[in-house]
Amino acid sequence: MSLSMYQATIPTFVRMLNNLSAILKKAEANAAARTIDPSVFVGARLATDMFPLSRQVQIATDGVKGCAARLAGVEIPSYPDTETTFAELQARIAKTVAFLEGFKAAQIDGSEDRTITLKLGPQEVSFAGADYVFNFVLPNLYFHATTAYAILRHNGVDVGKMDFLGAR
Amino acid sequence: MSLSMYQATIPTFVRMLNNLSAILKKAEANAAARTIDPSVFVGARLATDMFPLSRQVQIATDGVKGCAARLAGVEIPSYPDTETTFAELQARIAKTVAFLEGFKAAQIDGSEDRTITLKLGPQEVSFAGADYVFNFVLPNLYFHATTAYAILRHNGVDVGKMDFLGAR
Repeated sequence: MSLSMYQATIPTFVRMLNNLSAILKKAEANAAARTIDPSVFVGARLATDMFPLSRQVQIATDGVKGCAARLAGVEIPSYPDTETTFAELQARIAKTVAFLEGFKAAQIDGSEDRTITLKLGPQEVSFAGADYVFNFVLPNLYFHATTAYAILRHNGVDVGKMDFLGAR
Repeated sequence: MSLSMYQATIPTFVRMLNNLSAILKKAEANAAARTIDPSVFVGARLATDMFPLSRQVQIATDGVKGCAARLAGVEIPSYPDTETTFAELQARIAKTVAFLEGFKAAQIDGSEDRTITLKLGPQEVSFAGADYVFNFVLPNLYFHATTAYAILRHNGVDVGKMDFLGAR
C-alpha cells in the first residue's frame, strides 16, 4: 500500500467534520444545561477582531469542499453563509460531509502535481496538489476546527482533546 | 510523483514549527512593545483548566519528534519540560526542527502500514502508520499550534492567519 491523495483528504476531512459536529452537539447540550442562549455560543469569539464560532464552521467547511472539488476538477458548490443556530451549523457540516462522500478515490488520486490556483485576498496563488493539501488545506481545516473548539472551551463547554481527535 | 510518508510528515512538521517560531517572535516583540512581562504570555491559558502557552509548544514538539522516531524505528529523544521563557521555547522548537531535519526520506517512506503503538493515558492504542499520521499526529500538531496562536491572539498579539500558514 502507498499513500494516496484520496486518503490524505476525503476521509481525513470527513473525520474532522464529524468530530466538529460532535463538539457542537456537546456545546448545544451545555447551553441547555446552563440555560445559556445558544446564540451566545454561536456568536462567541476569542478576540473582538476574530471570527465568531459560526464563521469558523463556515470556513472549515468551505476549505474542504473547495479542496475536494478543485482536486477532482468539478465545480465548487456555493453555500450561503447564513447559519445562526447550532441546527444550521450541523446542517452545513452534514451537507459538506455528504458532498465529500460523493467522491470516488479515482477522482482525487493522481492529483499530487495538479496545479491548483486560488485567490487569497487580492492575490492569486498556485500550488501543486500535494502542497495545496499539506501546506494549506489541512492546516487551515485544523486551524478553524481548533478555534471553534477553543471558543467553546474558553466559554466553559466540557469538551476535551479526545472529542477533537475522535474515537479510535 | 506519488505521495510519500516523508512528504506528509517531516517537511510538514518543519514548516509548522517554523511558523510557530515566527508567531512566538511576534509575541515576544509585542510584549516588549506593550511593556508586558513576557512570562504573562508564556503562562497564559484560554481556560483555567487548559494548558498554558509553554505546554502547547512542548506538546506540539513532542508529537512530531515522536512521530518521526516511531515511523523510522529510532529512539525518541526525551526533552525535559522546563521551558519558562520565549528563548527556551524557541530553543525547544529549534532542537526539534534539527532532529526532524536529520531524517532521510528513506527512513520514513514505506511506513504506511507499520504498526505504531502508543500509550494514551491508561490505554495502549495501535495505528497503521498512515492512520497515525493523518488521524493523530497532524490534527494534534495543528491543535496545539492553533491553541498557542489563539492564546496569543486572545491576549492582543498582532498575529494573523498568514503567520500560521506561513509564506508561500
